[in-house]
Amino acid sequence: MHVVVPFGAARPKTRLSPALDADERREFAHAMLRDVLAALPDRHDPTVLATAPVECDAPVVVDERPLTEAVNDRLPGGDRPAGDESDAGSEDDPVAVVMADLALATTDALERLFAPDADVVFAPGRGGGTNALVVRHPSFHVDYHGASIRDHRAIAADAELETATVDSFRLATDVDEPDDLVELLLHAEGHATDWLRETGFAVTTTDGRVEARR
Amino acid sequence: MHVVVPFGAARPKTRLSPALDADERREFAHAMLRDVLAALPDRHDPTVLATAPVECDAPVVVDERPLTEAVNDRLPGGDRPAGDESDAGSEDDPVAVVMADLALATTDALERLFAPDADVVFAPGRGGGTNALVVRHPSFHVDYHGASIRDHRAIAADAELETATVDSFRLATDVDEPDDLVELLLHAEGHATDWLRETGFAVTTTDGRVEARR
Repeated sequence: MHVVVPFGAARPKTRLSPALDADERREFAHAMLRDVLAALPDRHDPTVLATAPVECDAPVVVDERPLTEAVNDRLPGGDRPAGDESDAGSEDDPVAVVMADLALATTDALERLFAPDADVVFAPGRGGGTNALVVRHPSFHVDYHGASIRDHRAIAADAELETATVDSFRLATDVDEPDDLVELLLHAEGHATDWLRETGFAVTTTDGRVEARR
Repeated sequence: MHVVVPFGAARPKTRLSPALDADERREFAHAMLRDVLAALPDRHDPTVLATAPVECDAPVVVDERPLTEAVNDRLPGGDRPAGDESDAGSEDDPVAVVMADLALATTDALERLFAPDADVVFAPGRGGGTNALVVRHPSFHVDYHGASIRDHRAIAADAELETATVDSFRLATDVDEPDDLVELLLHAEGHATDWLRETGFAVTTTDGRVEARR
C-alpha cells in the first residue's frame, strides 16, 4: 500500500515551545519522522509529504499547500499535482495517511490499521483528530480542520462507505504538547525517545502528576 | 474471570471540578461506573470495590483503605480482608482490575484485555497509569502511586513473570480531567455520554482545540 506521511517541515511542533526551543523542535520532529518511517511494515511504500524539503529515509514530495488539500490530491480519485514524481500507483490503489508525529507507532499497531478490508479505516487521535487512515474508495476525502474524526465519519456516511476503526493507544497519541512527551519515555524506544533522554528529559512525578521534565 | 472495579465513592472525580460541581461529579461518576459494568463480557463476574456504599448493578464491597492495599488483598495470593463476602473464587483464580472511569470501554476492548494468556496483562493509561490489568500469578502485586505502569512492569520483571500489553485507546482513556470529556462525546454512546449531553455539553472547537463545553 502507498503510505503518505505528512510532515510540517517549515516550523514543526510549535505547540511544544514551552518545552523545546526552535532548533530542538526541529531535531525532535525529525526523530519522530524517522520512528514513523521505521515502524512501517516493509511491504509498504512511503512518501513523505512535506511543506519544505527534508532529509529522510523515504521519497519526499514538497507541497506547500494546507494539509487537507495536499492530502486530498493524493487519495484514490485525487488529482495528482503537476510535477509530483511520487510513485503512488493508479488512482484505484488504496492510500494510507499516517501522521509524522505518531512516535509511539509500532509495526504491530500499523498492521492493525492496514488489516481491515473496509473502504475507509480510521485511527482516531486524542482530542478529535484523525491520526491515521486508510482510503480504498475514490468517494472519500479528508478535512483536517476541527474535530476531524467526526467530519471524516460524516463524509464516509454521506458517501455510503463502509468504515472500520482501529482502537490503538499508540496511534491515538500524536506528540503535540509537552504533556505528550512522557508517553514516549514510558512506551517507546526509538529515535525520538533517545533524543529526549539525551537532552536530559526524564519521567518525574509531582503531586500525582506524571511528566517528562529536565 | 473475577473482575474488581475500584470506585472512589466518597468524593469522586475531584479533578473534574473546573467543569462539574460536586453533585454533578457524583452523578457523572456513577454513570461511568454503569458504563464499565455494562461493557464487561457476560461470562465475567464483577465486584465493585468502593470506598463507600454505592448502588449499582453488581455486588459491592466497601473497603476504605487506599487503592493499592484494597486491590492487593483481592489479587491471586492476596489476603481477603475479614468480612469480605465477595465471591472471588480461590486464590489461584485470575483476577482483573478495571477502573470505574473507563467510560470509553467496550466489550471488544475488554475482550482484548482478557485474551492474552500471560501471567500479567496491562492496559496502560495516558500519563503513566495502569487503567486495567489481569493477574494470573500470586507473585504479582500492584502499586498505584506515581507512574504505575513502569512500577508494574518492574514488579513483574522482578518476579520473572510473563507479561502482555493491550494497545487500546479506549482503555487508555480514563476520564479524569475536563479535557477528557470530549472523548466521550466523540467516541462513546453510554450513560456517561448521555449524561453529558443532557447537562448541556457539546463538542466545540476554539483556536484548533477541540473541547467539551456547555
